[in-house]
Amino acid sequence: MTNSDASSNDGAAGTDTADARYERGLAIRREVLGEAHVNRSLAGVSDFSRPVQEYVTRTAWGDIWSRPGLDRRTRSLLNLAMLTALNRNHELGVHVRGAVTNGCTEEEIQEVLLQAAVYCGAPGALESFRVAERVLGELAAERNGVGHG
Amino acid sequence: MTNSDASSNDGAAGTDTADARYERGLAIRREVLGEAHVNRSLAGVSDFSRPVQEYVTRTAWGDIWSRPGLDRRTRSLLNLAMLTALNRNHELGVHVRGAVTNGCTEEEIQEVLLQAAVYCGAPGALESFRVAERVLGELAAERNGVGHG
Amino acid sequence: MTNSDASSNDGAAGTDTADARYERGLAIRREVLGEAHVNRSLAGVSDFSRPVQEYVTRTAWGDIWSRPGLDRRTRSLLNLAMLTALNRNHELGVHVRGAVTNGCTEEEIQEVLLQAAVYCGAPGALESFRVAERVLGELAAERNGVGHG
Amino acid sequence: MTNSDASSNDGAAGTDTADARYERGLAIRREVLGEAHVNRSLAGVSDFSRPVQEYVTRTAWGDIWSRPGLDRRTRSLLNLAMLTALNRNHELGVHVRGAVTNGCTEEEIQEVLLQAAVYCGAPGALESFRVAERVLGELAAERNGVGHG
Amino acid sequence: MTNSDASSNDGAAGTDTADARYERGLAIRREVLGEAHVNRSLAGVSDFSRPVQEYVTRTAWGDIWSRPGLDRRTRSLLNLAMLTALNRNHELGVHVRGAVTNGCTEEEIQEVLLQAAVYCGAPGALESFRVAERVLGELAAERNGVGHG
Amino acid sequence: MTNSDASSNDGAAGTDTADARYERGLAIRREVLGEAHVNRSLAGVSDFSRPVQEYVTRTAWGDIWSRPGLDRRTRSLLNLAMLTALNRNHELGVHVRGAVTNGCTEEEIQEVLLQAAVYCGAPGALESFRVAERVLGELAAERNGVGHG
Repeated sequence: MTNSDASSNDGAAGTDTADARYERGLAIRREVLGEAHVNRSLAGVSDFSRPVQEYVTRTAWGDIWSRPGLDRRTRSLLNLAMLTALNRNHELGVHVRGAVTNGCTEEEIQEVLLQAAVYCGAPGALESFRVAERVLGELAAERNGVGHG
Repeated sequence: MTNSDASSNDGAAGTDTADARYERGLAIRREVLGEAHVNRSLAGVSDFSRPVQEYVTRTAWGDIWSRPGLDRRTRSLLNLAMLTALNRNHELGVHVRGAVTNGCTEEEIQEVLLQAAVYCGAPGALESFRVAERVLGELAAERNGVGHG
Repeated sequence: MTNSDASSNDGAAGTDTADARYERGLAIRREVLGEAHVNRSLAGVSDFSRPVQEYVTRTAWGDIWSRPGLDRRTRSLLNLAMLTALNRNHELGVHVRGAVTNGCTEEEIQEVLLQAAVYCGAPGALESFRVAERVLGELAAERNGVGHG
Repeated sequence: MTNSDASSNDGAAGTDTADARYERGLAIRREVLGEAHVNRSLAGVSDFSRPVQEYVTRTAWGDIWSRPGLDRRTRSLLNLAMLTALNRNHELGVHVRGAVTNGCTEEEIQEVLLQAAVYCGAPGALESFRVAERVLGELAAERNGVGHG
Repeated sequence: MTNSDASSNDGAAGTDTADARYERGLAIRREVLGEAHVNRSLAGVSDFSRPVQEYVTRTAWGDIWSRPGLDRRTRSLLNLAMLTALNRNHELGVHVRGAVTNGCTEEEIQEVLLQAAVYCGAPGALESFRVAERVLGELAAERNGVGHG
Repeated sequence: MTNSDASSNDGAAGTDTADARYERGLAIRREVLGEAHVNRSLAGVSDFSRPVQEYVTRTAWGDIWSRPGLDRRTRSLLNLAMLTALNRNHELGVHVRGAVTNGCTEEEIQEVLLQAAVYCGAPGALESFRVAERVLGELAAERNGVGHG
């Protein structure tokens, strides 16, 4: 049995190598999260955390985000919803940043989190609003020349 | 303090009554889930479950789905993602049906659940694929004149 | 260090044996879930599941339910709320039965699950309403001489 | 179909407006969480978070907490249990404060969290004990004239 | 930057192709879950579910299970624990089967689920014991020439 | 009915007292988490948190960790997996420390968390890697004479 047909509607062809997936994922990750942000992350990677960083770059960014079936704006909104449901605030903050880069408006982010209030419960939505507000504030500060640098 | 200004970008105006929200929600619910499906649901509502049915109709459908900030197609995709994360298969099945009515393609549903595989974990994605596949099969059977009746 | 003082406001004294906790737990479990129901459960216990059945009887029923700090009615309502949040429907069904035995009214059960709709999200509340309605129906049938036995 | 009958055992009548629900919710929220605390919260609300703040005030406080079917003390205990299960520590802290205002004793709070240890697992209970202990300490400090203000 | 060094302690080398990962994963999956079981699964794969099946085969089985850092017996026990925590009973059943193939004893499975009772809560452990007991019964029936086929 | 037979393969005999379980649990807890660490914990226990501390010592450490069916190394790895799935970072940090004491290597901890990436989702694994890396750094500092004391 070969899975090459099925892979053809995948971001990855069956002959795609792990290195190719990593490079493709890293490129998308840079586009979505920003050159400076990703460079800081890569500089901080230790031997201990390298395998998971590479796994996430290859899998989340290289395999999934590279697929043509949904635009990046929609993928960002989906992540905000899932990360609220999963209660993962650090990663939520990272993806609020990505959502803005991908062209999501503040109102769209607000709408996703309001919808999450009904489906995931009010406490999760309140927490995600706090996270999103903080990151949106940081992004505004960075645009004004303040912030990390 | 009055919240009428803030409510103006809400689906609901500050003078909106509970009855009005219920009627608005019921109309959207019928459009999304189908006339026959909602009629069957309403016929099966007991005194015990009526308060939660009305709460959901007013809140989820009347307050949130009526808001203009996101189109219904996107709201459907968000729900598939959140219901996978929350492990709520019954409601997921209901919203796969709604997603199709709202114009989501099978490929888009597939993409959302694949993205969920990375963020929510493989077991949840596998389960949601089973739920979605069953409902898509039921919808195909209904289109062909088979089904509930 | 001795923990006998602290244990004095516990259901268990420091000299309490595992057998005593099990017997005390089994007695409370019978009172809450019913003689016939618990006898059926015990008859179905295999060697494989015996350790967890005994652990739960000793711990949940013998250690916690025996404590005087909250009445059984309140403990039942708390369990309905937690089991909704945890998405554990089988155990929820068992504790709806217990709630009724402990004197909770149908309206109180309804209120707990409505409150869960706001805090745990609508999909979980809808599912718990379905579970509770089924069990309340079974209890009504048993009172009318129909049912398991 | 009309839902006015069903709404009559609801906190809200069918003719209840969104503004009325908000005002009723805000009043209960002030009673439970304290005048000073709520004023500080309202002063900190941005345009971004206003919709979710209003949604929660209308829904959680205006629709659910206003219902007569359970007393406020019981509703507070239920929230401590659900927020432990949901792993939402910020909101848990807010509701420990509310529980004390609603007349729950420290022993009752302790009992709820001990019961959560069995049903939600030991790690969640340990974390909720840490949160509750911190908030109870803050409340004691405020009663002694120390604290926020 | 190249990730070839880091990948060398990975199951996959940097030049590994998607097809190679799939074939390696499929081989391990057959060894762990059984030839007949996997053949039935592959025969039932539709176009809709093929991408997630291939994703799981490449990622879970091809990338993770192929890594040398933990033996298969330990990986099986870890999965039983995680799937209990995640409340994913279908996948739990699949991995109970895998655990037995990988040489885990019934007592070890029992121990994992008892440990889960303390950390994940009693309701989850009770449910996982029911799932495990059913699958162990099916395996015994299959060994005796009864069963699916 | 007596449960003494079943208890014989338990860490606890049926005649085991609560005090005995506590003392046995405290001894194992000291061995796994370290004398100094446990002494600091005990010194910080208030009347409010004492019941849960004693419950956890008796149950998790005295009843489960004392059972012979799995070695401590495996129990540590299981806890890292479950605490990742449960999103309980504080307790995860405690058990990373315990895992090292129980002889788990850094590579094994890494492998468990990588496996969790597939089954619990990437965001949880990334967060657990951050927690584990911080604790491993603290342990290294303590071995070098720096740190808490």
